[in-house]
Amino acid sequence: MGKVNEDLIKERAKCSFNVEELTNFLDEGRDKTLERREREKLILTKKEEIFGGPPDHYLSHKEKYENAIRRAVVLFSLIRKLHAKNNTDLTNYRNILSCIFDTSISQDGSPFGLHYIMFMPVFMSQADEEQQRKWLQRALDCSIIGSYAQTELGHGTFIRGLETTATYDPSTKEFVLHSPTLTAYKWWPGALGNTANYCIVMAQLYTKGKCQGIHSFIVQVRDEETHIPLPGIKVGEMGAKMGLNIVNNGFLGFEHVRIPRTNMLMKHAQVLEDGTYVKSKNPKLIYGTMVFVRVVIVFNSVYSLAKATTIATRYSAVRRQTQMKPGEPELQIIDFVTQRDKVFSAIAACFAMMMNARRLWETFYIIDGQLHKGNLERLGELHALACCLKAVSTSDSAMFTERCRLACGGNGYMHSSNLPLTYALTSASCTYEGDNTVLLLQTARFLLKVWRQMDTVPLTPTVAYLKDASTPGYCDKWNNTVDGIIRGYRTVAMRKISSCVEIMTNKVMSGMSQEDAWNTTSIELVSAAESHCRALVISTYHEDMSKACKDMSPPLTEAMQHLVQLYAVYWTLEKMADFLQYTPISHSDVAFLRSWYVELLDKVRPNAVGLVDAFDIIDEFLQSSLGAYDGRVYERLMEEALKSPLNAEPVNQSFHKYLKPFMQGKL
Amino acid sequence: MGKVNEDLIKERAKCSFNVEELTNFLDEGRDKTLERREREKLILTKKEEIFGGPPDHYLSHKEKYENAIRRAVVLFSLIRKLHAKNNTDLTNYRNILSCIFDTSISQDGSPFGLHYIMFMPVFMSQADEEQQRKWLQRALDCSIIGSYAQTELGHGTFIRGLETTATYDPSTKEFVLHSPTLTAYKWWPGALGNTANYCIVMAQLYTKGKCQGIHSFIVQVRDEETHIPLPGIKVGEMGAKMGLNIVNNGFLGFEHVRIPRTNMLMKHAQVLEDGTYVKSKNPKLIYGTMVFVRVVIVFNSVYSLAKATTIATRYSAVRRQTQMKPGEPELQIIDFVTQRDKVFSAIAACFAMMMNARRLWETFYIIDGQLHKGNLERLGELHALACCLKAVSTSDSAMFTERCRLACGGNGYMHSSNLPLTYALTSASCTYEGDNTVLLLQTARFLLKVWRQMDTVPLTPTVAYLKDASTPGYCDKWNNTVDGIIRGYRTVAMRKISSCVEIMTNKVMSGMSQEDAWNTTSIELVSAAESHCRALVISTYHEDMSKACKDMSPPLTEAMQHLVQLYAVYWTLEKMADFLQYTPISHSDVAFLRSWYVELLDKVRPNAVGLVDAFDIIDEFLQSSLGAYDGRVYERLMEEALKSPLNAEPVNQSFHKYLKPFMQGKL
Repeated sequence: MGKVNEDLIKERAKCSFNVEELTNFLDEGRDKTLERREREKLILTKKEEIFGGPPDHYLSHKEKYENAIRRAVVLFSLIRKLHAKNNTDLTNYRNILSCIFDTSISQDGSPFGLHYIMFMPVFMSQADEEQQRKWLQRALDCSIIGSYAQTELGHGTFIRGLETTATYDPSTKEFVLHSPTLTAYKWWPGALGNTANYCIVMAQLYTKGKCQGIHSFIVQVRDEETHIPLPGIKVGEMGAKMGLNIVNNGFLGFEHVRIPRTNMLMKHAQVLEDGTYVKSKNPKLIYGTMVFVRVVIVFNSVYSLAKATTIATRYSAVRRQTQMKPGEPELQIIDFVTQRDKVFSAIAACFAMMMNARRLWETFYIIDGQLHKGNLERLGELHALACCLKAVSTSDSAMFTERCRLACGGNGYMHSSNLPLTYALTSASCTYEGDNTVLLLQTARFLLKVWRQMDTVPLTPTVAYLKDASTPGYCDKWNNTVDGIIRGYRTVAMRKISSCVEIMTNKVMSGMSQEDAWNTTSIELVSAAESHCRALVISTYHEDMSKACKDMSPPLTEAMQHLVQLYAVYWTLEKMADFLQYTPISHSDVAFLRSWYVELLDKVRPNAVGLVDAFDIIDEFLQSSLGAYDGRVYERLMEEALKSPLNAEPVNQSFHKYLKPFMQGKL
Repeated sequence: MGKVNEDLIKERAKCSFNVEELTNFLDEGRDKTLERREREKLILTKKEEIFGGPPDHYLSHKEKYENAIRRAVVLFSLIRKLHAKNNTDLTNYRNILSCIFDTSISQDGSPFGLHYIMFMPVFMSQADEEQQRKWLQRALDCSIIGSYAQTELGHGTFIRGLETTATYDPSTKEFVLHSPTLTAYKWWPGALGNTANYCIVMAQLYTKGKCQGIHSFIVQVRDEETHIPLPGIKVGEMGAKMGLNIVNNGFLGFEHVRIPRTNMLMKHAQVLEDGTYVKSKNPKLIYGTMVFVRVVIVFNSVYSLAKATTIATRYSAVRRQTQMKPGEPELQIIDFVTQRDKVFSAIAACFAMMMNARRLWETFYIIDGQLHKGNLERLGELHALACCLKAVSTSDSAMFTERCRLACGGNGYMHSSNLPLTYALTSASCTYEGDNTVLLLQTARFLLKVWRQMDTVPLTPTVAYLKDASTPGYCDKWNNTVDGIIRGYRTVAMRKISSCVEIMTNKVMSGMSQEDAWNTTSIELVSAAESHCRALVISTYHEDMSKACKDMSPPLTEAMQHLVQLYAVYWTLEKMADFLQYTPISHSDVAFLRSWYVELLDKVRPNAVGLVDAFDIIDEFLQSSLGAYDGRVYERLMEEALKSPLNAEPVNQSFHKYLKPFMQGKL
């Protein structure tokens, strides 16, 4: 780190609160901050091995992979040690995953991420005790590296449509795995291309001539010694992508590959030696892992956005452009209201989503505990909650990240800013683990069911507001406060849900099939689910932050409250069409909110750099010429440019080979 | 091309109109279609040299450049021939540029694009006759390759802030070019990194001890024989970017570099031998080129979007996912209403922007003609029009392209789909040649001026609606027709503009400076300019399409009218908050528009593939595994995956070097 930029020094002096206090809050406690820093310090002991070398964006696709593996074995040796300390604790596991994510964004994904995020959780939740004895320790030790293969070339969203078959042969007590068509090839499993040697494969189980639906199988795909694909296994890398290239996503086809009966994950359902199929007592139990993964994605999207806002905020404080008044110096671009709008709304979103990720985690933790005791009552609610939060947090993060990138102008287009990659990674999460539109429709299905049963079935916590909001008088008068806005949001969600029920009912009554009624109402259904989610997000943010503020110093409390207000007002203005339709908001209220918004931008202004400093993202994780702590933006841009291999020689060979003959008219 | 996918065959049979008729219309005449196809045929004579070889996304940064130059010299030898046929005609020049764009999107930009798009137009408009005699033919022949250097590391939007100096030394009759600081380095000029040997440089002119502001100079940067940078010239490539990597953007610094006096472009302003500065008679004349470039960008963004919609539509017809009803085959995803919403709204936007690009071109052509006769009357209007159309067309194109990409699910994330690159290129145009927020503020400045002078100065065509819209009774009743919607848009724009004037006036009256009033109102100003632009876009689209329909067959007329309606309704729903605030639209109108929208999606449905087929983008330009004419989506995805160098060997070397020791716990 060099000398810190003068403007950043001034910004930091201006901040009204203690940055470390906020950092501790974000980490959920001072001890947690220290723990995290210990983890980071450990990683930085191998700084050169993990972060050194040529930047990825100058390498070829193949070199990127090789470079990534070189770095990852060093990083994951450390992570393995961290993990070994406390193997079984779920919270510790979340920390491990955070640590993987923290480092993965700086490096276009993580070569062993899927092993931790999908392979191990799925294995732990679906393997029986004997299987766990056989493989779990090896997986924990990374002496096997696993992937998870569900999606196929022709099949993603519709899991029942998967084509890969696992046919039981009682004569040898084996399953025969087979890919009957090209579209049956597994497609997308992370680490599968060249890295993993084991894989959990989802396939249609056939036994005694009958299809029993999708089940999981653990399959060895490569020899442990030579790494050569086993016979009948067609495995490879799926090619270059917008991002996540070092994740090494792969394809996988089977040509009548035989695996032992005991490789079917048998904790819930079983196939006995004679081929008898024993149903799972509760097939829904496996949803727990799916929800866990979505919880992790929500945290991850918050973290991505924290990076993007850190970069954009620091750059906006350093960058000066345009003289407002003759003779004055050019303005820091952070002082343009349109810039504040883009960047500060993203900061507020980051805090809002952070509080919601925490709440989701707590909810998951409670309901998962109930699940393990056989109580499935709140699983539907948890699923609906995780679906919409995953959808809204990833698409908001992607949208705000891209706004932050564009707010950095041309320099945000440079890979050295790390904004293009941050966007590419965040944007991917809008699709993986459930396309956002599909997920919102799942939440909508839950909401419609809840609405229809409201008079007979008690409402669970996340939908309890629907009853209040449909009570006469709930939102008769508009109130320009955060509480008033929350009432507005709940009213909007309630009205949209009830309107969807009405539309659907009318369509079905007039003779339309249930499916067509659903499809032709789907734009409204998506919109209702989104509104429901926004009502939850804003109310959770407000409630949990208000609680948290009780333990904060007054200056930090004030700063936090400004952000809550900013978030509430921003999204009310964004979704104004809803409020004008479904609440008694007036034109003068709209005008009031507009000026309140600009005022709030003004109030956040002196704290902007402090707020992102509090995310405490070290430069090694940030990997950004525009966002480094010292703000030496222009020096770094030039330093990174000079690393381009095209600058290694004064004249590129293509001049002599192609350009000169062309210019001389010889072509 | 292989056997065409069955679903696509059915789609094509279903199309209600003659695709070739639409293609001819899009090309502006049957003869133009034939001419275009002739150009394409010519390019395809060198198909292997221009499009063959390893896909860019597997190459390193340096290899990409070298590969691009290898391909480009072949392509541009052909383009040079095409250009030579009709050097001076502006329409022909636009065709040449189209041709460059058509090929550049398939290849991450164009190595010589800037030579045609900036260097030559600027040179032609600013060089005096002697300079033209000296350099123009050489530029046309590509025996020199030029770049255009304006933006600096520390300076983009605010041109007056440029730091590079050109100081006249009468003793030697030379200018001394100098970069006094790091932030003075030129930053971004296309082709400058390793390709160009000449450059037009914008610098602060100093003569007789006085700064005369920004002027243009033609500077040789590399030796014509050896290509080695000339003494005092610090030139290099600026590093990897989100896209446009083969454009070879560069940096350029000067260490007291001397160039002859006659290298200042002297058509408008001059420095005489003794150092006397002769002012331009009209310094605004140079805006013509800037507008021309923005016109080209609008066309280019339409073309990008046409590619994205072609890919997404064909893929949506081929991809099947989810059984709607038990026993039925999985649905083509084009039949999900949420998918139609994403893809068809993009198709409609494409047609709308196409018609607007044409109108902008005609307007430019007329006003540019007037400019050359010294009539600058409509320059302000043209500038304001080009600013907002550039902003809205590029951000809409980027937004719709990204929606199309996401609508293709995971496979849209694959580089082989060509959607990530299409987005990266379109997104860049939101920033270059004027950041969109800045451009909308420029349009806003014009609109406020117009509004304030409305009673005294006659309104020019693009703002004439403001008078009508402010006439009492103009939009007293909402009308659910395209005409009604246009009235609504005009009312919204008028109300927002007048409201901005009012807010600004109040702020200034209450003691705020003009600059602060502008800044604190800028969110509303941007929004007003956008609404103005949308009012223009929808009315131009409707008017010009209605005129065009008079010469179309009834089925095509019907299809075109559905698209106009779809576009109008889509954007009304998108911008509903505006309509609810500023027009008499009622809740039942909103409900009506929502169902009309779903009906229109249904009407467009059978023609969707035909509509994008009519764009007639050949597979070589499309470069998409998902979008090829034959719809062999899965085969192509796998073929492209198999090209990955990571699939060349069964075991990557990194296994032995890094992975195995790690897995065996030896790290």
